[in-house]
Parts: sequence; C-alpha cells; structure tokens
Amino acid sequence: MNRIDVTSLILEKKRLHGLSWKDISVHLGGSKEWCTAALLGQMPLSAKQAHTIKQLLDLSDEAERILQEVPLRGCMDSAVPTDPTIYRFYEILQVYGTTIKELIHEEFGDGIMSAIDFSMDISRVKDEQGDRIKVTLNGKYLKYKKY
Amino acid sequence: MNRIDVTSLILEKKRLHGLSWKDISVHLGGSKEWCTAALLGQMPLSAKQAHTIKQLLDLSDEAERILQEVPLRGCMDSAVPTDPTIYRFYEILQVYGTTIKELIHEEFGDGIMSAIDFSMDISRVKDEQGDRIKVTLNGKYLKYKKY
Amino acid sequence: MNRIDVTSLILEKKRLHGLSWKDISVHLGGSKEWCTAALLGQMPLSAKQAHTIKQLLDLSDEAERILQEVPLRGCMDSAVPTDPTIYRFYEILQVYGTTIKELIHEEFGDGIMSAIDFSMDISRVKDEQGDRIKVTLNGKYLKYKKY
Amino acid sequence: MNRIDVTSLILEKKRLHGLSWKDISVHLGGSKEWCTAALLGQMPLSAKQAHTIKQLLDLSDEAERILQEVPLRGCMDSAVPTDPTIYRFYEILQVYGTTIKELIHEEFGDGIMSAIDFSMDISRVKDEQGDRIKVTLNGKYLKYKKY
Amino acid sequence: MNRIDVTSLILEKKRLHGLSWKDISVHLGGSKEWCTAALLGQMPLSAKQAHTIKQLLDLSDEAERILQEVPLRGCMDSAVPTDPTIYRFYEILQVYGTTIKELIHEEFGDGIMSAIDFSMDISRVKDEQGDRIKVTLNGKYLKYKKY
Amino acid sequence: MNRIDVTSLILEKKRLHGLSWKDISVHLGGSKEWCTAALLGQMPLSAKQAHTIKQLLDLSDEAERILQEVPLRGCMDSAVPTDPTIYRFYEILQVYGTTIKELIHEEFGDGIMSAIDFSMDISRVKDEQGDRIKVTLNGKYLKYKKY
Amino acid sequence: MNRIDVTSLILEKKRLHGLSWKDISVHLGGSKEWCTAALLGQMPLSAKQAHTIKQLLDLSDEAERILQEVPLRGCMDSAVPTDPTIYRFYEILQVYGTTIKELIHEEFGDGIMSAIDFSMDISRVKDEQGDRIKVTLNGKYLKYKKY
Amino acid sequence: MNRIDVTSLILEKKRLHGLSWKDISVHLGGSKEWCTAALLGQMPLSAKQAHTIKQLLDLSDEAERILQEVPLRGCMDSAVPTDPTIYRFYEILQVYGTTIKELIHEEFGDGIMSAIDFSMDISRVKDEQGDRIKVTLNGKYLKYKKY
Amino acid sequence: MNRIDVTSLILEKKRLHGLSWKDISVHLGGSKEWCTAALLGQMPLSAKQAHTIKQLLDLSDEAERILQEVPLRGCMDSAVPTDPTIYRFYEILQVYGTTIKELIHEEFGDGIMSAIDFSMDISRVKDEQGDRIKVTLNGKYLKYKKY
Amino acid sequence: MNRIDVTSLILEKKRLHGLSWKDISVHLGGSKEWCTAALLGQMPLSAKQAHTIKQLLDLSDEAERILQEVPLRGCMDSAVPTDPTIYRFYEILQVYGTTIKELIHEEFGDGIMSAIDFSMDISRVKDEQGDRIKVTLNGKYLKYKKY
Repeated sequence: MNRIDVTSLILEKKRLHGLSWKDISVHLGGSKEWCTAALLGQMPLSAKQAHTIKQLLDLSDEAERILQEVPLRGCMDSAVPTDPTIYRFYEILQVYGTTIKELIHEEFGDGIMSAIDFSMDISRVKDEQGDRIKVTLNGKYLKYKKY
Repeated sequence: MNRIDVTSLILEKKRLHGLSWKDISVHLGGSKEWCTAALLGQMPLSAKQAHTIKQLLDLSDEAERILQEVPLRGCMDSAVPTDPTIYRFYEILQVYGTTIKELIHEEFGDGIMSAIDFSMDISRVKDEQGDRIKVTLNGKYLKYKKY
Repeated sequence: MNRIDVTSLILEKKRLHGLSWKDISVHLGGSKEWCTAALLGQMPLSAKQAHTIKQLLDLSDEAERILQEVPLRGCMDSAVPTDPTIYRFYEILQVYGTTIKELIHEEFGDGIMSAIDFSMDISRVKDEQGDRIKVTLNGKYLKYKKY
Repeated sequence: MNRIDVTSLILEKKRLHGLSWKDISVHLGGSKEWCTAALLGQMPLSAKQAHTIKQLLDLSDEAERILQEVPLRGCMDSAVPTDPTIYRFYEILQVYGTTIKELIHEEFGDGIMSAIDFSMDISRVKDEQGDRIKVTLNGKYLKYKKY
Repeated sequence: MNRIDVTSLILEKKRLHGLSWKDISVHLGGSKEWCTAALLGQMPLSAKQAHTIKQLLDLSDEAERILQEVPLRGCMDSAVPTDPTIYRFYEILQVYGTTIKELIHEEFGDGIMSAIDFSMDISRVKDEQGDRIKVTLNGKYLKYKKY
Repeated sequence: MNRIDVTSLILEKKRLHGLSWKDISVHLGGSKEWCTAALLGQMPLSAKQAHTIKQLLDLSDEAERILQEVPLRGCMDSAVPTDPTIYRFYEILQVYGTTIKELIHEEFGDGIMSAIDFSMDISRVKDEQGDRIKVTLNGKYLKYKKY
Repeated sequence: MNRIDVTSLILEKKRLHGLSWKDISVHLGGSKEWCTAALLGQMPLSAKQAHTIKQLLDLSDEAERILQEVPLRGCMDSAVPTDPTIYRFYEILQVYGTTIKELIHEEFGDGIMSAIDFSMDISRVKDEQGDRIKVTLNGKYLKYKKY
Repeated sequence: MNRIDVTSLILEKKRLHGLSWKDISVHLGGSKEWCTAALLGQMPLSAKQAHTIKQLLDLSDEAERILQEVPLRGCMDSAVPTDPTIYRFYEILQVYGTTIKELIHEEFGDGIMSAIDFSMDISRVKDEQGDRIKVTLNGKYLKYKKY
Repeated sequence: MNRIDVTSLILEKKRLHGLSWKDISVHLGGSKEWCTAALLGQMPLSAKQAHTIKQLLDLSDEAERILQEVPLRGCMDSAVPTDPTIYRFYEILQVYGTTIKELIHEEFGDGIMSAIDFSMDISRVKDEQGDRIKVTLNGKYLKYKKY
Repeated sequence: MNRIDVTSLILEKKRLHGLSWKDISVHLGGSKEWCTAALLGQMPLSAKQAHTIKQLLDLSDEAERILQEVPLRGCMDSAVPTDPTIYRFYEILQVYGTTIKELIHEEFGDGIMSAIDFSMDISRVKDEQGDRIKVTLNGKYLKYKKY
C-alpha cells in the first residue's frame, strides 16, 4: 500500500459516506484548502489528524501511518494539465507569467513569493451577472540572498 | 516588425526613461496588472492607449498599429517555466491543482473559473515576520452546458 | 474502482447488449454527443441519469455514484493523437489554428469561443459524390475583460 | 525570401492599408476562411490570385511566385497551442476526441472525416444572452479500404 | 477485456498453434498485410471474419465482439520508434519526407496520398547480391479543396 | 554559408528559372527521387553533378563545394511531422509499423530492410475513380548477425 | 506471457541459480555479448538455444516458444538513459557524434556503420593506474546507394 | 563571436583549403579523433594548438582565444539524433544498453566506464565481403565509492 | 519480484517498525546518505549488509539476493522533478549550472567533478534566524584526457 | 540589446582582457560564485557593481542599466543538460533525489532547503590520490505552513 492507494481509498470512502471536503475539514481542523490537498496526497497529516480521518473513513492502521509521512508531491500527470478546470490556471501563467514576475520585482525587489510559507483561499463572490470565483494566493516574500 | 520586437522596444525605452510599470499604467488608464500584461505582449491596447504609449515611449507609427492587434498569447518559452519567481506559481498548480478542482466543483458545480472574464491583483501585505505577497485571481464561474 | 474502470465497464456492457450510443442517449435524455462524452468519462451525469444507466447496463451502486462526480477530463493519451479519425481534427488545428484566431478577432474582437458554454453536433450530409460529415461547434463568445 | 517572410510581409501590409481579411477575400475570390488560411501560409494561391494580392498589397515578384507554391503546412509552434483562442479548440479535442470517433464510426462505419476535401465556416449566431460563435467543419467521409 | 488484451491473446494462440500470418490470412480472406494489421489491433474484422478467427484460435465470445469494433489506432509506443526494423521506415521519412512532398505536388498538384483509401504490399525481390524487400504503398490522390 | 543556406538558394533559383525537379534531374543524371533529395540537402552530389547544378542555377563556388559534402541528414523539424502530405506517411507507420515488422520477419527472418542500400520510386497509377499515388520502397534485406 | 515477462523470469532464475552471463553463454554457444542481449530480450534464440535455456533455468514451454521470436527491440525506457553506466555511452555520442560522422565519411565515403551486421566486444585492459574497459564496435561499412 | 561561429568558420576554411581532418591533426599533434572533436567544438585546444590552427586556416585573434576555452559540450540538436550515420550508434545503445551494463558489472563490479579518461579510435578493417568499421571505446573503469 | 518491489517493501517495513534512516544506517554500517540511497534502490548492498537488512526488516531470501545486485539507477519519474523539496536542487542547476562549469574549469582545468568517486553529506547548521540545511557534494576532479 | 547580448559581450571582453572570474569578483565585491552567476545573467547587480563592471570591461550605458534588472533566470537550454561537467550534477539528482528528500524530512520535518536564501561555495580539497571538488550548498530550511 502506498500514498496513491490511500488517496484512492479516501475518495472511495468519501463518496460512500456522502461527505464533502468541507465536512471533513471540520473534523480534521484546518482550512478546507489545506485539508483537501492533504487528503489528495499533497500534505502530511499530524498523528491526531491521521487518527481522526482513519476513524471517520474507516481506514486501516497502515493507511493511518502513511498519511503522516511527507508525500512525494505533484498532482498533474503531464507538464501541461488536460482538465479544463485545472488548465485555466496554467493558462493564467501563460498569459500573466512575465507580468507577475515584473510586478513582484517592481514592488519587492529581487525575490519570489514562497510556495511553502503559503496559504490559499477559494471563495465565492456574489455577482448579479454571474457569481465569481476568487482564489487568493498568499505567500511570504523571500528575497534573493547576496553573498 | 512584429509584436515581439515591439515588446523588446518597450522594455528598452522603459529602461531608458526610468519608468515603472505603475507609472506607465497611470498614463494608460487601467490596473498595473492589465497594463503590464498588455505591454509585455499579452493584451491589445485601445487606439487611445496605443497613441499614449507611442508618445510616452517615443515609438513608431507601425508599433502603434501593432499594439492594437490581438496578440498571439503565451509568455513561457517552455511548458515548465525555469525562472524561480514564475516557477513557484507552476509549483502551486502541481501541489494544489486537484484541490482547486475539487473545491470549485464542491462549491459551484461542474464548471471552471474563467481566465477571460478575469482580473488579477498583486499587492503587499505588511507582516512583522516579513511582508507577504497576495495574488488575487478573480474570474467568473462558467458552468458546463448540458445539451 | 475509479472513473476509468467505469468507462471500461460501460463499453463492455454496451457491447454485450448490442446498444448504440444513440439508443443509450434516448434513455438518458440529452443529445447523442453529450451522452457519449459523458459515458466515455468526460461529463458528470445527473442522479437520475446515473440511475437510468445503472439499470440499463446493470452497473453497481459504486459505479452509479462515480458517474455523478465531475471527472478529470482529457481523453487523449499523448499531446498529438495517433488515431487517424481523431488526428484529422488535430490536423485542422495545425492548418487553420491561426485562421480561426484571426477571424474570431476580426468578427468579434478580443475573446474566445467558450468550450464550456458549448455544444457540438455531428451529422451526415447526403452528397452524390460521397456523403459528408458535418461537425458543428457552437460556443458562446467570451470577451476578454479590461480592468 | 521564404513563405514565412511572405506571411510577415502580408501582415505588415494588411495592417498598413487597414484591410480586413474579409476585404481581401472579396478581392481574391473565395471564402474568408480559405483566403485567410492561404495568406497565413497554409494554402497555395492560383496565379491569378497571387497577382491580385501582389498588386493589392504591393508585394515583390518573388513573393508572387512563392505564394503559388504548396506551403509546408503547420501553424502551431508547439504540440499544444498556448494562445487561449486557439487552445479552446485543442481542449474540445481533449474532451470530445473519443466521442467524435465513436459517433463517426456509429453513423458511417470505419473511416474518417477528410481534412483535405474539407471546408470550414465561422459565423456569428445572434443570441440575447450573448452572441455565439458557430464553427462548421465539413469534410467528406472517407472509408477505410479493405484489401 | 479490451482490444490490447485480445491482441495479446491472438499472439499467444498463434504461437501455440504454430500458424503464420499468411496461414491465418488464407482463412480470413484478405491480403496478408491487411489481416496482420487487423489482428495486431489496427483494423476491425467483419462479423464473419471475427467468427472465423474465434474458431481458428479458440477465442471467447467477448473477443469475437471486440474484434468487430473499430479500434483506437496507433501501434508505436513513442513518437520515434526504437525497434530497428520499424525505425528504418521512420528514417526514410527523415531523409525523404520533403522529397516525397515536392514530387507529389509536382506530379499531382496540392494534395496528399490517402492513408485510408490505401493498400500496402510487402514482397521479396530475388537478387544475386542479396534479396531485397519491396514495400509498395498505394493510396488514392486526394486534392485539397478550394472553397 | 552552410548546407541549409544552399538549399534555400536552390529553391529560390529553381523558382526563378521555372524549373521542375524532373527537369533538373535530367541535367544531373539520376532518378528524380534521388536528385530531389540531394538538392533538398539529404544526399551529396558528385563533383560533376555539383558543377552542373552550379551552372544550371548560377550558384557560387562555395555552394558547389558544399554540395559535394555528406550532409547532416534529417528533414523533419519535429519528431511528428505537421504537414499533412508528409504526415500521412507517419500515420502509415502508426497503423502498419508492427505489421511491417511481423511480415518482414515471417518472410525473411530476423533483420531489416536497409534504408541505405535503398531506392524509392513515386509514380502515378491511372484509375477511373481517381488516380492513385504509388510509392515503392526497395531496400536490401540485411540479416542480424549472430556472433 | 510476453517477452518482458520472460526476461524478468530469466533474471529471477539466473539470480536463484547463481549463474553469470558468461556461464550461461557457454551453455548457449555464442559470445557473452550476444547471449546477454538475447536473454535481456533483444535477440531471438535458435530452437536449440531456446531449449537449452529452458532446461538450464527451468522455464515453461511457452517461454521456450517466445524466446525464438524476433523481439520488439529497445531497452531504454526514456530517450536519454538515466542510469550512469549506460548514460556514459550516450554522453560519448553527445561529445563525439559529429566527429564519428566526419571520420567515417572521410575514410569510407557516404555511408554508415551497420548496426545489424555488427558485433560488440567488452573486455578488460590491465593498467597499473587502474584497469580500463575496452568496448569494440565492429560493423560492416554500408555505402549509400545512388540511383 | 562564439564557439559555434568558430566551428562554422573552421568548416568553411577547411573546405576552401581542401584539407582533411587527418591532415589537420598532423599539424595539431594528437589523434585524428581528438582533433576532429576539438575543431567541431567539443574540446579546448592548447595555446600552441590554437596558434597553429589560426595560422593554418587563417583565423582571427578572437577565434584563437575562443578555441582555448573549455566549450559547452553537446553536438546533437535533439535527444534522438536524426542523421543515419550518427543514429546507428544510438540504436546500438537501444539494443545493447542493458547488456553493456550487465557485463561491466559482472566483470568489474559496480561502476562505470569513464567518458572523461577516455579515448576513441575509428579504423578500417579490411574484409573480402566488404570492409568493416571498427570503433574502439577505451575508458578507465571507475568504481562507485562506498562511504 | 524486482528492485522496485523490494524498495516498496522496505518502506512498508520501515514504517511498521518505526525506524529512521539513521537507525538503519547504524545497523548497516555506512553513512546515512549512502545507506538511504541504497535502500531506495540506487546502490547495491554487500552480502553482509543485505543479510543484516533482511533480518532487521524481515525480508525474503529473494529480496536479500536482489539487494546485492547493481540496480538500474535513476529515481526521478520525469526529466524535471515535480516534488518541491527535490525541485529546489534542479532549480539550483538552472540558476548555477553554467557558473559551476566556469568555476570548475577556472580552478581545475578541463574536467568534471566525479559523480562516482563521490560522497554527499546533509547536515543541520544552527542559526538564530532559522536553521539551515548544508548539503556537501564531494567528488574527485577528473581531467579530460588528451590523446 | 537584451540580457543575453550583455552576457555575450561580457564573455568577449573578459576573454580579451584575460581576466578570471575571481579577478572580477574582487572588483565587484562578493563571492566568486555569486559574481559569476550574476555576470552569466542569473543575478542583478547593484548600481555600484554595474558601474564598476561597465568601467572594468568597457561596456555601454545601456548594458549598465540592463545589468541592474532582475533577469529571467534559467541557464540550461534543455531540461536535461548535455555538457558533462553540468550533467554530473543532474546525475546526482537522479541517484540521490529521493535520498535528499527523505533525509531532509527525517531531520527537519516537512519543508525544503531554500534556493533563494541560499549560498554556494566551490573549493578544492587537496588529496594525494587526486584533488577533489567540494561544492557546498547552504540554504535556509523553510517549513511548510499549515493553515
């Protein structure tokens, strides 16, 4: 059994119990974004969280142990994603990649937005002409070291 | 002369005049994000904007005409970007791609966040432990049509 | 069991029962194009449709649940398709890609044809010199937002 | 001078004279779709058409000769297009590729839609909820030979 | 069970019964080239042929049904084949690709050799300095439509 | 000046003088297939042939020297060709690659068809239902050495 | 069971019996290079050799049959090998590829070194400063045919 | 001017003076293999050698300086070479890669053949049935360190 | 059973017994870096080490044998790694690759740092502003041979 | 003029003046590693450093301005480097990538070694059996945020 097997199992049990990711995140403690990523195999759970999810979804002891390990990250099976919902974010990079780079450097100097000391929030913006999705990426500015 | 030549020219003139992207966006009228993307060759300018930038940066008539055309979009020269500042956003997709998909579908149903009826905002969040970069992506939710 | 398993199962049962895609779409309610795509793993079914297909093809409860989930889309196993029937459409893109772009922009302005608010129709055109296939793509024009 | 140079020149002259693709196709004789593709380097012109375009856009004798040659076709510079307007058509292939294959085989038998004995039409469909783009692909059905 | 499984099974049974492709093609009715391609998963059999092969090689009813379906074509597992016998044909394309194009256009005009209304023959040419392999490709000339 | 420059020059001069490949091959001495390949940069000319072509197309002494060198072969600029006329031959490999391999081995044993001791012929086959293109590949059978 | 399964089985049995490739080649009759390649799935065995290896390693009748078939060659699972021992040979191609080409052409004329009428020898060269590996590639010179 | 420009220049001058690689290597001092590789941009020359080649081929002072720098190595412009003369060596890797690995490990233990402390020799082997090319690769065995 | 299966088994048993890599390396004898690489399938164990690990983790005799074989090295499943912890090292190559090359050549001459006669050390550097990771790569300088 | 042009110019002037990277770094102020990377186009110079290098190497005002901009990073022209000196570091990743990941997580927890708050040192280690190259990578440990 490896992490990919555990993820498949979680999806199967989630479907069987009719739970939403939000429901599960309330049990786990943590934002829905972090918890979903963790259960999809991208973040390690704490011992307590692993125990909770084991009981909630009726997993094995081995699965509980695996969920506490740091996973090998990466969820896209090709360099360019094929699923349209995911692709739109890749497209944003194709259109705005150099813009993001220029504006980060103009405002902050030579550095990056951390993808480690980082959080994400996905929420609904009510709008009469059709609701909007707001995705907020929030990462620490890290400055290139000179030495 | 093509759009890539015009972008190079704009970078050269911007550097020569010591202008920032924000400075230029004030002249053009529009957010700094949209204006920077446009001047980097990803958005067409209106006739008025093209005339303004021509005068501001001392461009030719041909450049002015080219800037009003819809460009062939795409700013990354390989499927996976090599520049670290841009790469972090690709990495976020690698870690959170399936999470974003799941949470959009859970909240909105089967559809996508538009990358066309879309805006982006990059701003600084003051923080004692080091300032943070906040990138807000805001796109209309588009629902898959059943027919 | 995942969506790919369900698709294989559907193909197996369809073959066993000697049903055509059109036959099945009459049961499901919807165009033959949408229904075929859905059963090939590209669209989610409604609860009612999933129940219908379960009974029609004698599927399990788990399959019924899986069919209602939004699938990870993408049906080509390499960037360039190898099957000649599918490849011809890729070839059309190689020959007409920039033409489509130019003519959409000339007629509509800066934007795209939606692939989400979209429908497709495939039909036969009688012709003495050999019948023809007509594929009609119909998508909403979406305009690039300026901000 | 090669075909790519001629295409660049045509784009430059078209821009200078403020002509639309439709305008030009009226001069050339032929649909706007075919003429645009030809001028973008994907179809050869007849001697008469080449002479017309030479005079209309003030091209050289060499360009006139080159325009009558069968070009090396292919307009996308990577296997997966990066421009969003063009990408949507690739996405349609990712979502509907196997569906198109199944329905052509169900209706016609084992064969393909020709991309050679083929025409395309792009037109506007008025719609109160936002106009739609209709792209019609029309190709002869070619049956696989048994021998 | 899918088409790939059926192909493996056919290879296993062919080996067990010590049959050659030519032997089998005599039973099936058709050239050795077409029959071999069909049994390797690239062409659909008629109902009668599928029944014949089922009995000849002792296959299941399901295999018989699958053999009558139009397969997803493509037999190379990478864009450039690694097997030397197959590679030589790819090499011929690398050396003669543009030559073939030029000579087809010079003799026939703008069009292609059909790979659908197409037949192939592989035969031995006796030669004192070592026998030669003659591969004849025979396809209908298809002319590009102007419209 | 390198071989690619010489090829461009030859195409330019051929166009200017209104010569066909067949015309040129008569001057050079050799089949139209070999001569076209040579002039497109895939085969070296003899000293005499290089001199002939130099005079026929009015080339420089340097070009004459370059034409006698063995070129770096390979005429496709991507692993999978995009031009439809050339692509059909790649498609034949995708459909018949393993068939060719099986039949060569069945008839000849373990070996290959040489692409070096090789000739090609492209000719027209008159046919009431539309003329056909016949491409004959003729290569020496080379047997794998056991040692 | 296919050739890859047979190779795995051979490796397992070789390990279990504690045999070296040299040991096995003595039984099979043939150089250690050819025999190893054959048993790793790159060359077909004769009926006698297949019988010998079947008895030596206790394989099944089916394996014996499979070993006599011409395999689908190619042992690297990516275009550029990742294993350092194998990679060094790819590196030699990166550094010396054009040199090899130039010197073969200078000495022999336009042609290649056959990889079919070919043998290889790997041996130890004693050296006080550390022993050396000598790999000798020996292939027939094949001349490009003019026609 | 960079190393690639110098290589082009060397090829041009070599052609003009009608020199062979062997001729040049006699002047430079060193094997024809090493000298050819160096002049094709894969090895740095000593100061004396660079001066010699400058005078022999009438190069500039800058070229002389550049030839003494360690070049960025790599002579193939795609991962898989397209030229048949070079490709055969890649094919040998595809067929014998794992064999080479097994036999090096069996004879020497865990390590590699150095591609740095390495020499190559290309020579003609007279043979009544057609001369053969012998390529000898000779590299130091380097043992993996345990620590 | 192959090496990949053994690696999976080791990970499973390590998890079950709650052992760290450091714990295991103490049993095996050797640095934690070498031992971890070996157990992850990149280095062969000695007979004694294989026996130790067999008893420590309760493996089979076959696994013990496999662990003593030189593995097919390479641990990344795509050319560019997707896991952020591993990617940072690839990024360092993207930013510093040519710098490393220049400085090795400036200090040592034309050669490389061996990746075979090589050791690695990973350790913690205490730092008030956040601890640091120090990775030391130590390889023998190997000089390019001139011949 | 862009950053790539400036790098070429710097290499040309460095060669002309016979300066080493160490010499230049003494003028610039900073480690030889950082300075070399900066001058090879991977790091921005301060205004003072840009002025110094302009005078030292006799560059233009435009070059001085460009050197102060944050560059688009990435120095390898393919995903897998072809130069042997650079490749060895890629190979280390192939052999030790997962080992590095495991040991960082075992010692520090879930996080990465920063490639931004990072320094590198390349130095010689005297050794009787041949000097060694020591490359020290030193980056801040960054912990994955839970939220």
